[in-house]
Amino acid sequence: MEHPDTGARADFAVVDIDRERRQGLPEVVYAPGKDLHEITAIVGELTANCSGPVLVTRIEADAAAAVLADVPDGHYHRRARLLTWRPAARRRCRVCVVTAGTADGRVAEEALQVCLAVGLDAHLVADVGVAGIHRVLNRVDELRAADIVIVVAGMEGALASVVGGLVGCPVVAVPTSTGYGAALNGMTALAAMLTSCASGMSVVNIDSGFGAAMAAHRLAYAIEARG
Amino acid sequence: MEHPDTGARADFAVVDIDRERRQGLPEVVYAPGKDLHEITAIVGELTANCSGPVLVTRIEADAAAAVLADVPDGHYHRRARLLTWRPAARRRCRVCVVTAGTADGRVAEEALQVCLAVGLDAHLVADVGVAGIHRVLNRVDELRAADIVIVVAGMEGALASVVGGLVGCPVVAVPTSTGYGAALNGMTALAAMLTSCASGMSVVNIDSGFGAAMAAHRLAYAIEARG
Amino acid sequence: MEHPDTGARADFAVVDIDRERRQGLPEVVYAPGKDLHEITAIVGELTANCSGPVLVTRIEADAAAAVLADVPDGHYHRRARLLTWRPAARRRCRVCVVTAGTADGRVAEEALQVCLAVGLDAHLVADVGVAGIHRVLNRVDELRAADIVIVVAGMEGALASVVGGLVGCPVVAVPTSTGYGAALNGMTALAAMLTSCASGMSVVNIDSGFGAAMAAHRLAYAIEARG
Amino acid sequence: MEHPDTGARADFAVVDIDRERRQGLPEVVYAPGKDLHEITAIVGELTANCSGPVLVTRIEADAAAAVLADVPDGHYHRRARLLTWRPAARRRCRVCVVTAGTADGRVAEEALQVCLAVGLDAHLVADVGVAGIHRVLNRVDELRAADIVIVVAGMEGALASVVGGLVGCPVVAVPTSTGYGAALNGMTALAAMLTSCASGMSVVNIDSGFGAAMAAHRLAYAIEARG
Amino acid sequence: MEHPDTGARADFAVVDIDRERRQGLPEVVYAPGKDLHEITAIVGELTANCSGPVLVTRIEADAAAAVLADVPDGHYHRRARLLTWRPAARRRCRVCVVTAGTADGRVAEEALQVCLAVGLDAHLVADVGVAGIHRVLNRVDELRAADIVIVVAGMEGALASVVGGLVGCPVVAVPTSTGYGAALNGMTALAAMLTSCASGMSVVNIDSGFGAAMAAHRLAYAIEARG
Amino acid sequence: MEHPDTGARADFAVVDIDRERRQGLPEVVYAPGKDLHEITAIVGELTANCSGPVLVTRIEADAAAAVLADVPDGHYHRRARLLTWRPAARRRCRVCVVTAGTADGRVAEEALQVCLAVGLDAHLVADVGVAGIHRVLNRVDELRAADIVIVVAGMEGALASVVGGLVGCPVVAVPTSTGYGAALNGMTALAAMLTSCASGMSVVNIDSGFGAAMAAHRLAYAIEARG
Amino acid sequence: MEHPDTGARADFAVVDIDRERRQGLPEVVYAPGKDLHEITAIVGELTANCSGPVLVTRIEADAAAAVLADVPDGHYHRRARLLTWRPAARRRCRVCVVTAGTADGRVAEEALQVCLAVGLDAHLVADVGVAGIHRVLNRVDELRAADIVIVVAGMEGALASVVGGLVGCPVVAVPTSTGYGAALNGMTALAAMLTSCASGMSVVNIDSGFGAAMAAHRLAYAIEARG
Amino acid sequence: MEHPDTGARADFAVVDIDRERRQGLPEVVYAPGKDLHEITAIVGELTANCSGPVLVTRIEADAAAAVLADVPDGHYHRRARLLTWRPAARRRCRVCVVTAGTADGRVAEEALQVCLAVGLDAHLVADVGVAGIHRVLNRVDELRAADIVIVVAGMEGALASVVGGLVGCPVVAVPTSTGYGAALNGMTALAAMLTSCASGMSVVNIDSGFGAAMAAHRLAYAIEARG
Repeated sequence: MEHPDTGARADFAVVDIDRERRQGLPEVVYAPGKDLHEITAIVGELTANCSGPVLVTRIEADAAAAVLADVPDGHYHRRARLLTWRPAARRRCRVCVVTAGTADGRVAEEALQVCLAVGLDAHLVADVGVAGIHRVLNRVDELRAADIVIVVAGMEGALASVVGGLVGCPVVAVPTSTGYGAALNGMTALAAMLTSCASGMSVVNIDSGFGAAMAAHRLAYAIEARG
Repeated sequence: MEHPDTGARADFAVVDIDRERRQGLPEVVYAPGKDLHEITAIVGELTANCSGPVLVTRIEADAAAAVLADVPDGHYHRRARLLTWRPAARRRCRVCVVTAGTADGRVAEEALQVCLAVGLDAHLVADVGVAGIHRVLNRVDELRAADIVIVVAGMEGALASVVGGLVGCPVVAVPTSTGYGAALNGMTALAAMLTSCASGMSVVNIDSGFGAAMAAHRLAYAIEARG
Repeated sequence: MEHPDTGARADFAVVDIDRERRQGLPEVVYAPGKDLHEITAIVGELTANCSGPVLVTRIEADAAAAVLADVPDGHYHRRARLLTWRPAARRRCRVCVVTAGTADGRVAEEALQVCLAVGLDAHLVADVGVAGIHRVLNRVDELRAADIVIVVAGMEGALASVVGGLVGCPVVAVPTSTGYGAALNGMTALAAMLTSCASGMSVVNIDSGFGAAMAAHRLAYAIEARG
Repeated sequence: MEHPDTGARADFAVVDIDRERRQGLPEVVYAPGKDLHEITAIVGELTANCSGPVLVTRIEADAAAAVLADVPDGHYHRRARLLTWRPAARRRCRVCVVTAGTADGRVAEEALQVCLAVGLDAHLVADVGVAGIHRVLNRVDELRAADIVIVVAGMEGALASVVGGLVGCPVVAVPTSTGYGAALNGMTALAAMLTSCASGMSVVNIDSGFGAAMAAHRLAYAIEARG
Repeated sequence: MEHPDTGARADFAVVDIDRERRQGLPEVVYAPGKDLHEITAIVGELTANCSGPVLVTRIEADAAAAVLADVPDGHYHRRARLLTWRPAARRRCRVCVVTAGTADGRVAEEALQVCLAVGLDAHLVADVGVAGIHRVLNRVDELRAADIVIVVAGMEGALASVVGGLVGCPVVAVPTSTGYGAALNGMTALAAMLTSCASGMSVVNIDSGFGAAMAAHRLAYAIEARG
Repeated sequence: MEHPDTGARADFAVVDIDRERRQGLPEVVYAPGKDLHEITAIVGELTANCSGPVLVTRIEADAAAAVLADVPDGHYHRRARLLTWRPAARRRCRVCVVTAGTADGRVAEEALQVCLAVGLDAHLVADVGVAGIHRVLNRVDELRAADIVIVVAGMEGALASVVGGLVGCPVVAVPTSTGYGAALNGMTALAAMLTSCASGMSVVNIDSGFGAAMAAHRLAYAIEARG
Repeated sequence: MEHPDTGARADFAVVDIDRERRQGLPEVVYAPGKDLHEITAIVGELTANCSGPVLVTRIEADAAAAVLADVPDGHYHRRARLLTWRPAARRRCRVCVVTAGTADGRVAEEALQVCLAVGLDAHLVADVGVAGIHRVLNRVDELRAADIVIVVAGMEGALASVVGGLVGCPVVAVPTSTGYGAALNGMTALAAMLTSCASGMSVVNIDSGFGAAMAAHRLAYAIEARG
Repeated sequence: MEHPDTGARADFAVVDIDRERRQGLPEVVYAPGKDLHEITAIVGELTANCSGPVLVTRIEADAAAAVLADVPDGHYHRRARLLTWRPAARRRCRVCVVTAGTADGRVAEEALQVCLAVGLDAHLVADVGVAGIHRVLNRVDELRAADIVIVVAGMEGALASVVGGLVGCPVVAVPTSTGYGAALNGMTALAAMLTSCASGMSVVNIDSGFGAAMAAHRLAYAIEARG
């Protein structure tokens, strides 16, 4: 196996600039726990050493503004808490992001905006939870036109199972921390999605719209590799 | 408040023979942890001191046969593991027991047979899990004709939310221990049902077909009290 | 099955305006996680397309005032955190809400006020926890006069079992997050109520006074359907 | 502090023969995980070096018979799974062991028989669970005559709270693993008892009739020390 | 059984004024979740209808000052967060409160001050955790002079087992939420104390210095009843 | 949406014969909890009404032999506990199943054999756990040649993160119940995989080799739909 | 970094024959989940390609006899369930294995025998649990003479904290699954040891005598590397 | 065993001034839950009665400044939240602290600075998480030059297993609370490290950089004792 020469090593971080070659996308920066100067330095390394889109996730508006002051030409999406530079050209992979309720919107927005930032052809089908099952049934054609469906749902997460049974393509379920009491901060939706009666779904971490978008990127990577 | 004179006190048990007066049904005997002679003695007390149906739940076939040898004129339902004497006359309350999959059948059977034994007008809609959502949609009329719907489902328990959104009457959800891994022996279905997006459902203990049937009995009791 | 034409679809929400037909009550709005303009818009849709009472739950006083400024003729109940328009006419179903201690009052108030807002004949029996068992025994007549009893209790939730044994009608138990340490934010009361020795009780989510009221509405719906 | 010279040291065990002096009772042998020859050897050491009663707990009938063949003059109580030599003379402390249901009988029997073996004045009040609250109310005089009450209950364990409110003396609650599903093998009863609204109760481990009896012994020790 | 006429019933509370007769101590007021006017009203009822000490636990300094303004002649102990009126005369029961570390001090103080307020002869042995085992060994005489020992410890709670093996009298263990990570907010100390190798200890809820003091009160009640 | 006429309804089951049209594969039969005659009947329905491969998973050798006696021309794979009829023609999608240790072999075999049975081009890379990291590094070319990688690992599941960082294609992680103690029957591996530092992996239920194979089928379905 | 050429690759296993060079000890075979022929083959590879001791852990007597029939000159230790070939020469590192009770003996035996098999100078101090604290205090000199102390304890695991405070050398704590109820199969001892007030202890998995012995081997490796 | 005369006893604390003799290092002060005057008093006792380095851990900058005003000549390390007086002379033991990501930096800094303060020869290898496995492989020589490696990692903690397989010396794993959702505040990393496939690693509490440093101190103590 190759041993790339470590790339850009700082005191505090070793940026994996080889990742773009291995996985078709530069390393993405997860903001929590990092100082502003660390974020700025890492973004600088990525911009200098990679050619694809550069993303910072889960960054609040104030911090984003401070980073943008240092690293210009970026764009901040407030609801998705996403900071981007050099968004990718549109790729052919169609992603449908479906949500059970309006309270799941912020996580869905992260999934949607990360998909768009890395070039996927993504759109949103919102608020079609199963308590009114006709809502999702009326949108079946949109779901079936996608190459991958991301289902974002909290509480009991039942929408994932229904969607999983309606479409044949890959379904990635994102449990959210919406709800209270026995919702257990998303653990219930997580466990429910993992034990879904609709086979072949897979699951990412609670509230991880980013993780689902990256799963979509991997799918697009595989489809493109086949071309 | 009344203080009934304790009724039938044995060394090992104090049979609550006043319960039939308070709740319209004699105490029901839960077999696990009781010796055969204890079951026989309690059934004898209930038969002697009450007028309604006498039930023993969760009793295996061998034990049931032994008890029947001592207390004649009873009937054993093997799949429901239910032993009954003096089944009740048919009452007007219509119960629909719905299951997600065939593996939930044993719990559903307990719910169904206890309902029938206490006189409710119950029937079964089996194997209509949400992975093929059209299956339950095709049975909506049956569901809507009921006074109470009991939904029996394991794994992620999503069927309860869908049914809860389709009908207006009381819905009692019974999580089952069907499934493995993240199903957590029914805890996932239990938590999922408690956090359902379909409001007004209520939940009983894991695998407790009996508990759901008793909830149906309470509903019938209330309806009859209105008459 | 019918496929109602989705009703009022906004960018962010698909209001289930068919629900009033299916379940006898318009969709109820859960405020947490929704912006003010979203709440206002959804309330507007419900008011325009439905005829029954419109409710917003778990809304704080400031937000309620802002919504009321946009949508007049509503009423805010501070302790229940409930916002209502067009309260229903009184229906015949009698609900008794019982609490174990004063710390359970807020959840009980939500149960009580939602019941009243949807037209049920509800009243409160407060602070009759089992550490002084004579308190609940002195109120047995009130409990037995109800069509449904809602028991609100935190800590170990023992009151539910005692009440469940005293009355014959449906009992819905609401565990609360009252307590500390081993109370586990209400999980202990929840599990205790699910394993109650009083058969036929059913349980809703922790702190969900709303859920219990909706269970009462479903009961009333069934009773009315019998008429 | 004293440093007793370790007493009887074997390869596999260091019998704490000083314990009788410190706590008024020889070390009690817990059988599970010990070979027969280990049990026999330890009992031999205790018999030789102590003067009080010698007990082996949780020992099955076959093993007990084998040990009795080697160490004569003992007595085996099958339901309590208790093996004893030299039972103590009757002490003045009155213990009342109360159970919620017949399924808790085995644990209650261990509590009762260990109390008797160490000389306490113990008796049983069985099957007075709260689903029929009059059963325990009818026995209040017996409860109030005790110096300590041991409450043995599984499922939701509500009996402990009711008893805790009825008597002024020490109450030790023993959760049992009776029940299924959300009973969580006794964890629910355990947590419920720890969060009881009846103040001043204390709790021992699940199914530990022995632990409760030892708590009663400690109480008797304190009362005797006052004399 | 007696049925005292409920005593002082308010809209929000039913004060159990019979408790002093049943248990030798008036009901104690738990402040969290109660409004100031509720606390004041309940304290007023207790002062008027009972003769013993009146206590409010877990009340912060501001709230205590406000209540004291309305109900004079009380005393506030800041570290124990305890408000008292009419402290009891000294009773003969000797209580030793032992702590593992200084971080457990607040809980220990609640145990100590409640004991003193109800008349017990209590004192503190602080900071003798087992990491330096000689510290507790040097205090054995003080421990052995007590009628009951309360052990307050967080983290792994090992001090309880050591003390439980050193004394013959009742030992009540109070797990605290001291610690982080695997301490699990006191659950680890709680479970550790419940499974202690020192037999006959009993356990109260996490951080419940109050509960341990009430267990001591029950012991004193039993000793006094013997006199 | 379409409402297929429910297909083959038996007393005990409603076979979803429309699933092949929706998802490119007939319903797969999960054996646990089903009687032999139920399995046989369902397989008969699927064979008669569908054209693709028919699979029964988690069926033991004895049961498989009995079913094969009734429904000929099938094949049983003992290690995978898989029974198949009409295996699919080879499809273009390349699947690499990777295992951390030999103890994960049974789950990996289920993944592998289900992939082969539904026509995917699958092979195994066994026993390359990270305790000897060179083992997986020596197989990187094989991993990178795949369209999808399935990582099967128990204990801490670290292999999934390493593989997730080495390849760009979709990675589905299957936690196994291998290990003891803190492995928590696979829950630790499950949680570890969900929080992997390698982004874009997705996870299926514990021991669900079947679930991972179905995720691979969904990927192939999407790739084929693009053609 | 080196990339050793993978060594001995079989269909089912990739034996890490480079491990002896990296870590001073050949790979150790964990028997559960492996067939006899797999164990035999792996042992053969290790014997042929390595020079140090070859160990198989957690192997039952029957399986051990079968393997020994194929691979001669080995030795089986029944209580430790350990199979060894070519035991190592004595190394200078002194290990003291301490147990709380006789029920921890099997796990302690695994720790002891693995230490001896890899050449460490190990001995056992048994049954010195803290309920009789003088037992461990009487053995302090033995503990202080060791280079590393392994503490094996179940239930609440308090012995680890006491020993951790008595010695200055490394202490490795092994929680065992001894106990019941709140012992939670060893999770309580595990969590207790992780939160010990004695600083600098470290912990291995539940019942992992092997893991502790390997930690001792690592210590010896470091000491030898300093020489 | 010795019984040192308790040393410095205050009302609130019993400083273990004998610890330096037993373990080669004075007691370390854990700041949370202690008042400033308590910290100052304890530091004063330690400075007066011991000769080695005095440390206060987890102390925030404000509190540190206040203590330093009273006890001069100390030094505060802000990122490690560590306050020290009389740092030790350099000892020969080489410690390598390795981190998976920048978010683990604060815990790693505590480990590093405590090691340095007690005289160990420690340095940091930062941000070499396994998602880019070449990063840690490029640092193998640094890892292998150490006498002990401390691995600090959150989320799934996979780095610990990889490092554990690369080096022969003792490895202490520190799980961190980095991550969200299924990371469970560090419990997932903790459980993962305890079940690592790399044998002989040991684990300390979540976020306990201090605990790992103390384990390193114990190792150095053992090595020095051999000299």
